[in-house]
Amino acid sequence: MYKIIDGKAISEQVKTEIAAEVKAMVAAGKRAPHLAVIIVGHDGGSETYVAHKVKSCEQVGFKSSKLAFEADITEDALLHEIDKLNKDPELDGFIVQLPIPKHISEQKVIEAIDFRKDVDGFHPVNVGRMSIGLPCYVSATPSGILELLKRYNIPTAGKNCVVIGRSNIVGKPVASLMMQKGYPGDATVTVCHSRSHNLKEICLAADIIIAALGKPEFLTADMVKEGATIIDVGTTRVPTSDTKSGYRLCGDVKFDEVAPKCAYITPVPGGVGPMTIVSLLKNTLLAAKGEIY
Amino acid sequence: MYKIIDGKAISEQVKTEIAAEVKAMVAAGKRAPHLAVIIVGHDGGSETYVAHKVKSCEQVGFKSSKLAFEADITEDALLHEIDKLNKDPELDGFIVQLPIPKHISEQKVIEAIDFRKDVDGFHPVNVGRMSIGLPCYVSATPSGILELLKRYNIPTAGKNCVVIGRSNIVGKPVASLMMQKGYPGDATVTVCHSRSHNLKEICLAADIIIAALGKPEFLTADMVKEGATIIDVGTTRVPTSDTKSGYRLCGDVKFDEVAPKCAYITPVPGGVGPMTIVSLLKNTLLAAKGEIY
Repeated sequence: MYKIIDGKAISEQVKTEIAAEVKAMVAAGKRAPHLAVIIVGHDGGSETYVAHKVKSCEQVGFKSSKLAFEADITEDALLHEIDKLNKDPELDGFIVQLPIPKHISEQKVIEAIDFRKDVDGFHPVNVGRMSIGLPCYVSATPSGILELLKRYNIPTAGKNCVVIGRSNIVGKPVASLMMQKGYPGDATVTVCHSRSHNLKEICLAADIIIAALGKPEFLTADMVKEGATIIDVGTTRVPTSDTKSGYRLCGDVKFDEVAPKCAYITPVPGGVGPMTIVSLLKNTLLAAKGEIY
Repeated sequence: MYKIIDGKAISEQVKTEIAAEVKAMVAAGKRAPHLAVIIVGHDGGSETYVAHKVKSCEQVGFKSSKLAFEADITEDALLHEIDKLNKDPELDGFIVQLPIPKHISEQKVIEAIDFRKDVDGFHPVNVGRMSIGLPCYVSATPSGILELLKRYNIPTAGKNCVVIGRSNIVGKPVASLMMQKGYPGDATVTVCHSRSHNLKEICLAADIIIAALGKPEFLTADMVKEGATIIDVGTTRVPTSDTKSGYRLCGDVKFDEVAPKCAYITPVPGGVGPMTIVSLLKNTLLAAKGEIY
Protein backbone atom coordinates (compact mmCIF):
# COMPACT_ATOMS: atom_id res chain seq x y z
CA MET A 1 0.00 0.00 0.00
CA TYR A 2 1.40 3.39 -0.96
CA LYS A 3 1.99 6.16 1.53
CA ILE A 4 0.79 9.70 0.93
CA ILE A 5 3.45 12.34 1.56
CA ASP A 6 1.35 14.80 3.50
CA GLY A 7 2.83 18.19 2.67
CA LYS A 8 0.09 19.97 4.51
CA ALA A 9 0.78 18.18 7.78
CA ILE A 10 4.56 18.54 7.42
CA SER A 11 4.22 22.23 6.61
CA GLU A 12 2.17 22.75 9.78
CA GLN A 13 4.80 20.86 11.75
CA VAL A 14 7.63 23.01 10.36
CA LYS A 15 5.59 26.16 11.01
CA THR A 16 5.19 25.11 14.63
CA GLU A 17 8.95 24.66 14.88
CA ILE A 18 9.55 28.07 13.32
CA ALA A 19 6.98 29.72 15.60
CA ALA A 20 8.77 28.27 18.63
CA GLU A 21 12.09 29.71 17.42
CA VAL A 22 10.52 33.11 16.82
CA LYS A 23 8.97 33.09 20.28
CA ALA A 24 12.37 32.35 21.79
CA MET A 25 13.98 35.12 19.71
CA VAL A 26 11.42 37.66 20.82
CA ALA A 27 11.63 36.50 24.44
CA ALA A 28 15.40 37.09 24.19
CA GLY A 29 14.70 40.69 23.25
CA LYS A 30 15.28 40.41 19.51
CA ARG A 31 12.81 41.68 16.98
CA ALA A 32 10.73 39.15 15.04
CA PRO A 33 11.86 38.19 11.50
CA HIS A 34 10.43 40.54 8.90
CA LEU A 35 9.50 39.50 5.34
CA ALA A 36 8.22 41.87 2.66
CA VAL A 37 6.37 40.82 -0.47
CA ILE A 38 6.12 43.00 -3.55
CA ILE A 39 3.19 42.31 -5.85
CA VAL A 40 2.64 44.07 -9.17
CA GLY A 41 -0.77 44.09 -10.85
CA HIS A 42 -3.80 41.94 -10.05
CA ASP A 43 -3.08 38.42 -11.25
CA GLY A 44 -5.57 36.19 -9.40
CA GLY A 45 -3.09 33.40 -8.73
CA SER A 46 -0.43 35.81 -7.47
CA GLU A 47 -2.86 37.57 -5.15
CA THR A 48 -3.84 34.24 -3.63
CA TYR A 49 -0.20 33.18 -3.16
CA VAL A 50 0.73 36.51 -1.58
CA ALA A 51 -2.25 36.34 0.77
CA HIS A 52 -1.11 32.86 1.83
CA LYS A 53 2.42 34.11 2.42
CA VAL A 54 1.25 37.03 4.55
CA LYS A 55 -1.03 34.74 6.53
CA SER A 56 1.77 32.24 7.09
CA CYS A 57 3.99 35.03 8.43
CA GLU A 58 1.31 35.87 10.97
CA GLN A 59 1.01 32.20 11.96
CA VAL A 60 4.69 31.91 12.89
CA GLY A 61 4.99 35.35 14.49
CA PHE A 62 6.88 37.08 11.67
CA LYS A 63 6.30 40.68 10.79
CA SER A 64 5.23 40.96 7.17
CA SER A 65 4.79 43.84 4.74
CA LYS A 66 2.88 43.73 1.49
CA LEU A 67 3.79 46.32 -1.13
CA ALA A 68 1.25 46.32 -3.95
CA PHE A 69 1.85 48.27 -7.15
CA GLU A 70 -0.36 48.75 -10.18
CA ALA A 71 0.52 46.85 -13.36
CA ASP A 72 1.64 50.07 -15.05
CA ILE A 73 4.46 50.83 -12.62
CA THR A 74 7.65 51.54 -14.60
CA GLU A 75 10.69 49.32 -14.37
CA ASP A 76 12.69 52.18 -12.91
CA ALA A 77 10.11 52.87 -10.23
CA LEU A 78 10.01 49.19 -9.26
CA LEU A 79 13.81 48.98 -9.14
CA HIS A 80 13.76 52.05 -6.91
CA GLU A 81 11.34 50.33 -4.52
CA ILE A 82 13.59 47.28 -4.46
CA ASP A 83 16.53 49.47 -3.63
CA LYS A 84 14.65 50.94 -0.68
CA LEU A 85 13.98 47.44 0.66
CA ASN A 86 17.62 46.47 0.12
CA LYS A 87 18.61 49.35 2.38
CA ASP A 88 15.96 48.87 5.07
CA PRO A 89 17.80 47.59 8.17
CA GLU A 90 14.51 46.49 9.75
CA LEU A 91 13.79 44.07 6.89
CA ASP A 92 15.39 40.62 6.78
CA GLY A 93 14.23 39.41 3.41
CA PHE A 94 11.83 40.15 0.59
CA ILE A 95 10.50 38.69 -2.61
CA VAL A 96 8.91 40.00 -5.77
CA GLN A 97 5.93 37.79 -6.58
CA LEU A 98 6.27 36.48 -10.15
CA PRO A 99 5.10 36.84 -12.86
CA ILE A 100 5.48 40.59 -13.30
CA PRO A 101 4.13 42.61 -16.25
CA LYS A 102 5.98 42.08 -19.54
CA HIS A 103 7.36 45.62 -19.75
CA ILE A 104 9.54 44.94 -16.71
CA SER A 105 12.59 42.68 -17.02
CA GLU A 106 12.19 39.80 -14.61
CA GLN A 107 15.92 39.14 -14.66
CA LYS A 108 16.75 42.77 -13.89
CA VAL A 109 14.36 42.66 -10.95
CA ILE A 110 15.87 39.43 -9.63
CA GLU A 111 19.40 40.78 -9.90
CA ALA A 112 18.42 44.09 -8.29
CA ILE A 113 17.53 42.32 -5.06
CA ASP A 114 20.43 42.26 -2.60
CA PHE A 115 21.37 38.56 -2.56
CA ARG A 116 21.61 38.72 1.23
CA LYS A 117 17.87 39.48 1.34
CA ASP A 118 16.93 37.23 -1.59
CA VAL A 119 14.89 34.72 0.40
CA ASP A 120 13.39 33.37 -2.84
CA GLY A 121 16.90 32.21 -3.78
CA PHE A 122 16.60 33.38 -7.40
CA HIS A 123 19.63 35.71 -7.47
CA PRO A 124 22.62 34.32 -9.43
CA VAL A 125 24.77 34.46 -6.29
CA ASN A 126 22.39 32.15 -4.46
CA VAL A 127 21.92 29.89 -7.48
CA GLY A 128 25.70 29.66 -7.94
CA ARG A 129 26.40 29.04 -4.27
CA MET A 130 23.80 26.29 -4.21
CA SER A 131 25.41 24.62 -7.20
CA ILE A 132 28.86 24.80 -5.59
CA GLY A 133 27.46 23.55 -2.28
CA LEU A 134 27.96 26.72 -0.23
CA PRO A 135 25.52 28.13 2.33
CA CYS A 136 22.80 30.10 0.51
CA TYR A 137 19.10 30.70 0.24
CA VAL A 138 17.74 27.68 -1.61
CA SER A 139 14.66 28.46 -3.65
CA ALA A 140 11.39 27.48 -2.10
CA THR A 141 10.09 24.58 -4.17
CA PRO A 142 13.35 22.58 -4.35
CA SER A 143 13.94 23.18 -0.67
CA GLY A 144 10.39 22.05 0.14
CA ILE A 145 10.85 18.86 -1.87
CA LEU A 146 14.03 17.96 -0.01
CA GLU A 147 12.35 18.67 3.31
CA LEU A 148 9.57 16.22 2.43
CA LEU A 149 12.06 13.49 1.47
CA LYS A 150 13.88 14.09 4.74
CA ARG A 151 10.82 14.06 6.97
CA TYR A 152 9.71 10.75 5.44
CA ASN A 153 13.24 9.29 5.62
CA ILE A 154 13.14 8.38 1.95
CA PRO A 155 16.53 6.98 0.90
CA THR A 156 18.26 8.98 -1.82
CA ALA A 157 21.95 7.95 -1.83
CA GLY A 158 22.80 6.11 -5.03
CA LYS A 159 19.15 6.08 -6.09
CA ASN A 160 18.06 6.98 -9.61
CA CYS A 161 16.31 10.31 -9.38
CA VAL A 162 14.64 11.56 -12.54
CA VAL A 163 13.66 15.21 -12.74
CA ILE A 164 11.17 16.03 -15.50
CA GLY A 165 11.48 19.69 -16.43
CA ARG A 166 14.49 22.01 -16.54
CA SER A 167 13.07 25.29 -15.27
CA ASN A 168 15.28 27.70 -13.37
CA ILE A 169 13.02 27.66 -10.34
CA VAL A 170 12.37 23.92 -9.95
CA GLY A 171 13.98 21.43 -12.34
CA LYS A 172 17.56 22.69 -12.42
CA PRO A 173 17.91 23.57 -8.72
CA VAL A 174 16.26 20.40 -7.44
CA ALA A 175 18.55 18.36 -9.71
CA SER A 176 21.50 20.26 -8.33
CA LEU A 177 20.44 19.55 -4.74
CA MET A 178 19.71 15.88 -5.31
CA MET A 179 23.24 15.30 -6.64
CA GLN A 180 25.01 17.11 -3.76
CA LYS A 181 26.92 15.15 -1.20
CA GLY A 182 24.87 14.34 1.91
CA TYR A 183 21.26 13.58 2.68
CA PRO A 184 18.90 14.17 0.98
CA GLY A 185 21.22 13.96 -1.98
CA ASP A 186 23.94 11.65 -3.31
CA ALA A 187 21.42 10.53 -5.93
CA THR A 188 22.19 9.68 -9.54
CA VAL A 189 20.25 12.48 -11.16
CA THR A 190 18.79 12.57 -14.66
CA VAL A 191 17.17 15.73 -16.01
CA CYS A 192 14.59 15.16 -18.76
CA HIS A 193 12.66 17.78 -20.69
CA SER A 194 10.64 18.48 -23.80
CA ARG A 195 13.52 17.44 -26.06
CA SER A 196 14.19 14.10 -24.36
CA HIS A 197 13.71 11.10 -26.65
CA ASN A 198 13.15 8.14 -24.37
CA LEU A 199 11.35 9.60 -21.41
CA LYS A 200 9.26 6.55 -20.61
CA GLU A 201 12.26 4.25 -20.48
CA ILE A 202 14.18 6.68 -18.28
CA CYS A 203 11.26 7.12 -15.88
CA LEU A 204 10.83 3.36 -15.62
CA ALA A 205 14.36 3.09 -14.20
CA ALA A 206 13.71 5.78 -11.59
CA ASP A 207 13.52 5.22 -7.84
CA ILE A 208 12.41 8.83 -7.39
CA ILE A 209 10.59 10.94 -9.98
CA ILE A 210 10.21 14.67 -9.53
CA ALA A 211 7.64 15.83 -12.08
CA ALA A 212 7.93 19.54 -12.71
CA LEU A 213 6.93 20.19 -16.29
CA GLY A 214 3.48 21.74 -15.82
CA LYS A 215 1.51 19.32 -17.99
CA PRO A 216 -1.58 17.98 -16.20
CA GLU A 217 -1.54 14.21 -15.67
CA PHE A 218 1.54 13.76 -17.87
CA LEU A 219 3.09 10.97 -15.80
CA THR A 220 1.08 7.78 -16.22
CA ALA A 221 1.30 4.36 -14.57
CA ASP A 222 3.15 2.78 -17.49
CA MET A 223 6.07 5.17 -16.86
CA VAL A 224 6.54 4.27 -13.20
CA LYS A 225 8.22 1.25 -11.65
CA GLU A 226 6.82 -0.57 -8.63
CA GLY A 227 7.91 0.99 -5.36
CA ALA A 228 8.98 4.37 -6.76
CA THR A 229 8.63 7.64 -4.90
CA ILE A 230 6.74 10.30 -6.85
CA ILE A 231 7.00 14.01 -6.16
CA ASP A 232 4.42 16.00 -8.12
CA VAL A 233 5.30 19.67 -8.52
CA GLY A 234 2.58 20.43 -11.08
CA THR A 235 -0.17 22.87 -10.15
CA THR A 236 -2.07 23.65 -13.32
CA ARG A 237 -5.47 25.27 -12.95
CA VAL A 238 -7.94 23.14 -14.86
CA PRO A 239 -11.49 24.43 -15.42
CA THR A 240 -14.22 22.45 -13.68
CA SER A 241 -17.85 22.91 -12.70
CA ASP A 242 -17.25 21.03 -9.44
CA THR A 243 -15.77 23.90 -7.46
CA LYS A 244 -16.98 27.36 -6.53
CA SER A 245 -13.82 28.91 -8.02
CA GLY A 246 -14.49 27.25 -11.37
CA TYR A 247 -11.14 25.43 -11.43
CA ARG A 248 -9.24 22.72 -9.67
CA LEU A 249 -5.49 22.28 -9.20
CA CYS A 250 -4.14 19.46 -11.30
CA GLY A 251 -0.71 17.87 -10.86
CA ASP A 252 1.69 16.50 -13.47
CA VAL A 253 0.95 12.97 -12.28
CA LYS A 254 -2.12 10.86 -13.07
CA PHE A 255 -2.54 10.19 -9.40
CA ASP A 256 -5.26 7.52 -9.40
CA GLU A 257 -3.36 5.11 -11.61
CA VAL A 258 0.19 5.96 -10.49
CA ALA A 259 -0.36 5.91 -6.73
CA PRO A 260 -1.02 2.15 -6.44
CA LYS A 261 2.44 1.44 -7.90
CA CYS A 262 4.27 3.80 -5.54
CA ALA A 263 5.98 3.53 -2.19
CA TYR A 264 5.40 7.25 -1.58
CA ILE A 265 3.54 9.90 -3.53
CA THR A 266 2.64 13.55 -3.03
CA PRO A 267 -0.94 14.60 -3.69
CA VAL A 268 -1.98 17.80 -5.49
CA PRO A 269 -3.04 19.89 -3.72
CA GLY A 270 -1.53 19.24 -0.29
CA GLY A 271 1.88 17.89 -1.34
CA VAL A 272 4.68 20.13 -2.49
CA GLY A 273 2.52 23.27 -2.58
CA PRO A 274 2.24 23.93 1.17
CA MET A 275 5.99 23.31 1.56
CA THR A 276 7.03 26.20 -0.68
CA ILE A 277 5.73 28.84 1.70
CA VAL A 278 7.36 27.06 4.61
CA SER A 279 10.70 27.16 2.77
CA LEU A 280 10.29 30.89 2.30
CA LEU A 281 9.65 31.28 6.03
CA LYS A 282 12.72 29.17 6.81
CA ASN A 283 14.89 31.34 4.58
CA THR A 284 13.53 34.46 6.25
CA LEU A 285 14.29 33.02 9.67
CA LEU A 286 17.85 32.21 8.52
CA ALA A 287 18.14 35.78 7.24
CA ALA A 288 16.97 37.21 10.55
CA LYS A 289 19.47 35.07 12.40
CA GLY A 290 22.24 36.06 9.98
CA GLU A 291 23.09 32.40 9.44
CA ILE A 292 23.82 32.53 5.71
CA TYR A 293 25.52 35.88 5.12
CA MET B 1 35.82 3.22 -37.73
CA TYR B 2 35.93 5.67 -34.84
CA LYS B 3 36.95 9.27 -35.25
CA ILE B 4 39.47 10.93 -32.97
CA ILE B 5 38.35 14.31 -31.64
CA ASP B 6 41.54 16.21 -32.16
CA GLY B 7 41.60 18.78 -29.39
CA LYS B 8 45.07 19.87 -30.29
CA ALA B 9 44.13 20.74 -33.86
CA ILE B 10 40.88 22.43 -32.82
CA SER B 11 42.67 24.43 -30.16
CA GLU B 12 45.16 25.67 -32.75
CA GLN B 13 42.28 26.59 -35.04
CA VAL B 14 40.51 28.56 -32.29
CA LYS B 15 43.77 30.26 -31.37
CA THR B 16 44.19 31.36 -34.98
CA GLU B 17 40.67 32.82 -34.89
CA ILE B 18 41.41 34.63 -31.63
CA ALA B 19 44.73 35.94 -32.96
CA ALA B 20 42.92 37.38 -35.99
CA GLU B 21 40.43 39.17 -33.73
CA VAL B 22 43.21 40.56 -31.56
CA LYS B 23 45.06 41.79 -34.63
CA ALA B 24 41.92 43.58 -35.80
CA MET B 25 41.40 45.10 -32.33
CA VAL B 26 44.93 46.40 -32.17
CA ALA B 27 44.73 47.68 -35.75
CA ALA B 28 41.61 49.59 -34.70
CA GLY B 29 43.67 51.34 -32.02
CA LYS B 30 42.52 49.29 -29.02
CA ARG B 31 44.92 47.71 -26.59
CA ALA B 32 45.41 43.94 -26.70
CA PRO B 33 43.49 41.79 -24.20
CA HIS B 34 45.39 41.36 -20.96
CA LEU B 35 45.30 38.26 -18.76
CA ALA B 36 47.05 37.90 -15.42
CA VAL B 37 47.81 34.62 -13.70
CA ILE B 38 48.53 34.34 -9.99
CA ILE B 39 50.52 31.34 -8.88
CA VAL B 40 51.28 30.51 -5.27
CA GLY B 41 54.10 28.14 -4.34
CA HIS B 42 55.98 25.74 -6.59
CA ASP B 43 53.66 22.86 -7.48
CA GLY B 44 55.17 21.25 -10.57
CA GLY B 45 51.85 20.69 -12.34
CA SER B 46 50.72 24.23 -11.66
CA GLU B 47 53.97 25.72 -12.93
CA THR B 48 53.61 23.77 -16.18
CA TYR B 49 49.98 24.86 -16.63
CA VAL B 50 50.81 28.49 -15.95
CA ALA B 51 53.72 28.39 -18.39
CA HIS B 52 51.33 27.00 -21.04
CA LYS B 53 48.84 29.74 -20.34
CA VAL B 54 51.44 32.49 -20.62
CA LYS B 55 52.76 30.97 -23.83
CA SER B 56 49.26 30.73 -25.30
CA CYS B 57 48.68 34.39 -24.53
CA GLU B 58 51.78 35.24 -26.52
CA GLN B 59 50.60 33.06 -29.41
CA VAL B 60 47.34 34.97 -29.82
CA GLY B 61 48.79 38.42 -29.18
CA PHE B 62 47.47 38.92 -25.65
CA LYS B 63 49.42 40.74 -23.01
CA SER B 64 49.98 38.46 -20.03
CA SER B 65 51.27 38.96 -16.51
CA LYS B 66 52.45 36.26 -14.17
CA LEU B 67 52.39 37.04 -10.46
CA ALA B 68 54.24 34.39 -8.49
CA PHE B 69 54.11 34.28 -4.70
CA GLU B 70 55.83 32.01 -2.25
CA ALA B 71 53.79 29.26 -0.59
CA ASP B 72 53.95 31.06 2.76
CA ILE B 73 52.09 34.18 1.57
CA THR B 74 49.31 34.97 4.04
CA GLU B 75 45.66 34.82 3.01
CA ASP B 76 45.31 38.54 3.70
CA ALA B 77 48.29 39.39 1.53
CA LEU B 78 46.94 37.26 -1.33
CA LEU B 79 43.48 38.83 -1.03
CA HIS B 80 45.16 42.22 -1.15
CA GLU B 81 46.93 41.29 -4.40
CA ILE B 82 43.61 40.12 -5.83
CA ASP B 83 42.04 43.40 -4.89
CA LYS B 84 44.77 45.28 -6.74
CA LEU B 85 44.05 43.24 -9.88
CA ASN B 86 40.31 43.83 -9.48
CA LYS B 87 40.97 47.56 -9.58
CA ASP B 88 43.52 47.57 -12.42
CA PRO B 89 41.79 49.18 -15.43
CA GLU B 90 44.46 47.83 -17.79
CA LEU B 91 43.66 44.23 -16.89
CA ASP B 92 40.73 42.39 -18.49
CA GLY B 93 40.76 39.17 -16.56
CA PHE B 94 42.80 37.09 -14.17
CA ILE B 95 42.93 33.72 -12.55
CA VAL B 96 44.44 32.20 -9.45
CA GLN B 97 46.02 28.89 -10.41
CA LEU B 98 44.65 26.12 -8.18
CA PRO B 99 45.46 24.38 -5.93
CA ILE B 100 46.68 26.96 -3.43
CA PRO B 101 48.33 26.18 -0.06
CA LYS B 102 46.00 24.79 2.58
CA HIS B 103 46.26 27.79 4.93
CA ILE B 104 44.46 29.94 2.34
CA SER B 105 40.74 29.46 1.77
CA GLU B 106 40.18 28.56 -1.88
CA GLN B 107 36.57 29.68 -1.69
CA LYS B 108 37.51 33.05 -0.18
CA VAL B 109 40.00 33.58 -2.99
CA ILE B 110 37.46 32.66 -5.66
CA GLU B 111 34.85 35.01 -4.20
CA ALA B 112 37.38 37.82 -3.81
CA ILE B 113 37.88 37.98 -7.57
CA ASP B 114 35.61 40.55 -9.21
CA PHE B 115 33.18 38.36 -11.15
CA ARG B 116 33.59 40.68 -14.13
CA LYS B 117 37.26 39.65 -14.31
CA ASP B 118 36.69 36.03 -13.30
CA VAL B 119 37.70 34.46 -16.62
CA ASP B 120 37.99 31.06 -14.93
CA GLY B 121 34.23 31.23 -14.32
CA PHE B 122 34.50 29.92 -10.75
CA HIS B 123 32.81 32.85 -8.97
CA PRO B 124 29.27 32.07 -7.72
CA VAL B 125 27.86 34.85 -9.91
CA ASN B 126 29.24 33.20 -13.03
CA VAL B 127 28.23 29.72 -11.89
CA GLY B 128 24.72 30.93 -11.11
CA ARG B 129 24.34 32.86 -14.36
CA MET B 130 25.46 29.81 -16.31
CA SER B 131 22.87 27.65 -14.55
CA ILE B 132 20.12 30.16 -15.29
CA GLY B 133 21.29 30.52 -18.89
CA LEU B 134 22.53 34.12 -18.74
CA PRO B 135 25.68 35.48 -20.40
CA CYS B 136 28.67 34.69 -18.20
CA TYR B 137 32.20 33.35 -18.15
CA VAL B 138 31.83 29.60 -18.50
CA SER B 139 34.62 27.69 -16.82
CA ALA B 140 37.33 26.42 -19.09
CA THR B 141 36.94 22.65 -19.21
CA PRO B 142 33.14 22.55 -19.71
CA SER B 143 33.40 25.28 -22.30
CA GLY B 144 36.18 23.40 -24.10
CA ILE B 145 34.11 20.22 -24.17
CA LEU B 146 31.15 22.00 -25.75
CA GLU B 147 33.42 23.61 -28.30
CA LEU B 148 34.70 20.18 -29.34
CA LEU B 149 31.17 18.80 -29.72
CA LYS B 150 30.27 21.83 -31.80
CA ARG B 151 33.30 21.72 -34.08
CA TYR B 152 32.62 18.05 -34.83
CA ASN B 153 28.88 18.65 -35.29
CA ILE B 154 28.05 15.93 -32.80
CA PRO B 155 24.28 15.83 -32.25
CA THR B 156 23.22 16.48 -28.65
CA ALA B 157 19.49 17.33 -28.71
CA GLY B 158 17.47 14.62 -27.00
CA LYS B 159 20.55 12.43 -26.65
CA ASN B 160 21.43 10.64 -23.43
CA CYS B 161 24.47 12.37 -22.00
CA VAL B 162 26.05 10.76 -18.97
CA VAL B 163 28.47 12.80 -16.90
CA ILE B 164 30.66 10.77 -14.54
CA GLY B 165 31.83 12.98 -11.69
CA ARG B 166 30.17 15.86 -9.90
CA SER B 167 33.02 18.29 -9.30
CA ASN B 168 32.36 22.01 -9.21
CA ILE B 169 34.78 22.68 -12.03
CA VAL B 170 33.79 19.97 -14.51
CA GLY B 171 30.95 17.58 -13.73
CA LYS B 172 28.30 19.97 -12.46
CA PRO B 173 28.91 22.80 -14.93
CA VAL B 174 29.16 20.57 -17.99
CA ALA B 175 25.93 18.84 -16.94
CA SER B 176 24.32 22.23 -16.61
CA LEU B 177 25.46 23.28 -20.09
CA MET B 178 24.43 20.03 -21.77
CA MET B 179 20.85 20.43 -20.50
CA GLN B 180 20.49 24.07 -21.59
CA LYS B 181 18.27 24.95 -24.52
CA GLY B 182 20.16 25.21 -27.82
CA TYR B 183 23.17 23.53 -29.36
CA PRO B 184 25.30 21.99 -28.00
CA GLY B 185 22.73 21.20 -25.34
CA ASP B 186 19.13 20.00 -25.15
CA ALA B 187 20.50 16.65 -23.99
CA THR B 188 18.94 14.38 -21.41
CA VAL B 189 21.66 14.61 -18.78
CA THR B 190 22.51 12.10 -16.07
CA VAL B 191 25.12 12.87 -13.44
CA CYS B 192 26.77 9.82 -11.87
CA HIS B 193 29.35 9.75 -9.11
CA SER B 194 31.01 7.64 -6.47
CA ARG B 195 27.67 6.92 -4.78
CA SER B 196 25.87 5.78 -7.95
CA HIS B 197 24.66 2.17 -7.80
CA ASN B 198 24.18 1.13 -11.40
CA LEU B 199 26.85 3.02 -13.26
CA LYS B 200 27.50 0.38 -15.91
CA GLU B 201 23.86 0.13 -16.88
CA ILE B 202 23.54 3.92 -17.05
CA CYS B 203 26.67 4.30 -19.17
CA LEU B 204 25.45 1.59 -21.55
CA ALA B 205 22.39 3.72 -22.34
CA ALA B 206 24.50 6.81 -23.09
CA ASP B 207 24.97 8.42 -26.49
CA ILE B 208 27.59 10.73 -25.01
CA ILE B 209 29.75 9.98 -21.97
CA ILE B 210 31.78 12.71 -20.32
CA ALA B 211 34.21 10.99 -17.96
CA ALA B 212 35.46 13.41 -15.32
CA LEU B 213 36.12 11.44 -12.18
CA GLY B 214 39.91 11.31 -12.19
CA LYS B 215 40.30 7.52 -12.02
CA PRO B 216 42.74 6.23 -14.66
CA GLU B 217 41.13 3.89 -17.20
CA PHE B 218 37.89 3.68 -15.23
CA LEU B 219 35.60 3.52 -18.26
CA THR B 220 35.94 0.17 -19.95
CA ALA B 221 34.51 -1.25 -23.19
CA ASP B 222 31.75 -3.19 -21.42
CA MET B 223 30.29 0.12 -20.18
CA VAL B 224 30.00 1.72 -23.61
CA LYS B 225 27.41 1.18 -26.32
CA GLU B 226 28.29 0.97 -30.01
CA GLY B 227 28.46 4.37 -31.67
CA ALA B 228 28.78 6.43 -28.50
CA THR B 229 30.78 9.63 -28.23
CA ILE B 230 33.34 9.61 -25.43
CA ILE B 231 34.84 12.73 -23.89
CA ASP B 232 37.71 11.93 -21.55
CA VAL B 233 38.46 14.67 -19.04
CA GLY B 234 40.84 12.62 -16.91
CA THR B 235 44.47 13.68 -16.68
CA THR B 236 46.04 11.65 -13.92
CA ARG B 237 49.82 11.53 -13.78
CA VAL B 238 50.83 7.90 -13.75
CA PRO B 239 54.45 6.96 -13.03
CA THR B 240 56.27 5.34 -15.92
CA SER B 241 59.85 4.64 -16.97
CA ASP B 242 58.97 5.38 -20.61
CA THR B 243 59.20 9.16 -20.44
CA LYS B 244 61.87 11.61 -19.42
CA SER B 245 59.52 13.25 -16.93
CA GLY B 246 58.91 9.92 -15.23
CA TYR B 247 55.15 10.05 -15.69
CA ARG B 248 52.53 9.91 -18.41
CA LEU B 249 49.08 11.50 -18.50
CA CYS B 250 46.36 8.91 -18.19
CA GLY B 251 42.68 9.50 -18.97
CA ASP B 252 39.57 8.12 -17.27
CA VAL B 253 38.87 5.96 -20.32
CA LYS B 254 40.57 2.69 -21.26
CA PHE B 255 41.20 4.08 -24.72
CA ASP B 256 42.44 1.01 -26.58
CA GLU B 257 39.40 -1.11 -25.85
CA VAL B 258 36.77 1.66 -25.78
CA ALA B 259 37.77 3.48 -28.97
CA PRO B 260 36.76 0.69 -31.41
CA LYS B 261 33.16 0.89 -30.11
CA CYS B 262 32.90 4.67 -30.47
CA ALA B 263 31.74 7.07 -33.12
CA TYR B 264 33.96 9.79 -31.62
CA ILE B 265 36.49 9.78 -28.83
CA THR B 266 38.95 12.25 -27.33
CA PRO B 267 42.50 11.07 -26.69
CA VAL B 268 44.56 11.86 -23.58
CA PRO B 269 46.66 13.89 -24.03
CA GLY B 270 45.52 16.00 -26.98
CA GLY B 271 41.76 15.93 -26.41
CA VAL B 272 40.06 18.09 -23.80
CA GLY B 273 43.34 19.32 -22.31
CA PRO B 274 44.40 21.76 -25.04
CA MET B 275 40.86 23.18 -25.18
CA THR B 276 40.85 24.41 -21.59
CA ILE B 277 43.50 27.04 -22.24
CA VAL B 278 41.69 28.09 -25.38
CA SER B 279 38.50 28.60 -23.36
CA LEU B 280 40.41 30.80 -20.96
CA LEU B 281 41.70 32.87 -23.88
CA LYS B 282 38.15 33.15 -25.26
CA ASN B 283 36.85 34.39 -21.92
CA THR B 284 39.63 36.94 -21.74
CA LEU B 285 38.82 38.14 -25.25
CA LEU B 286 35.14 38.48 -24.25
CA ALA B 287 36.24 40.43 -21.18
CA ALA B 288 38.39 42.77 -23.26
CA LYS B 289 35.47 43.36 -25.62
CA GLY B 290 33.09 43.93 -22.69
CA GLU B 291 30.69 41.40 -24.16
CA ILE B 292 29.56 39.75 -20.94
CA TYR B 293 29.44 42.52 -18.35
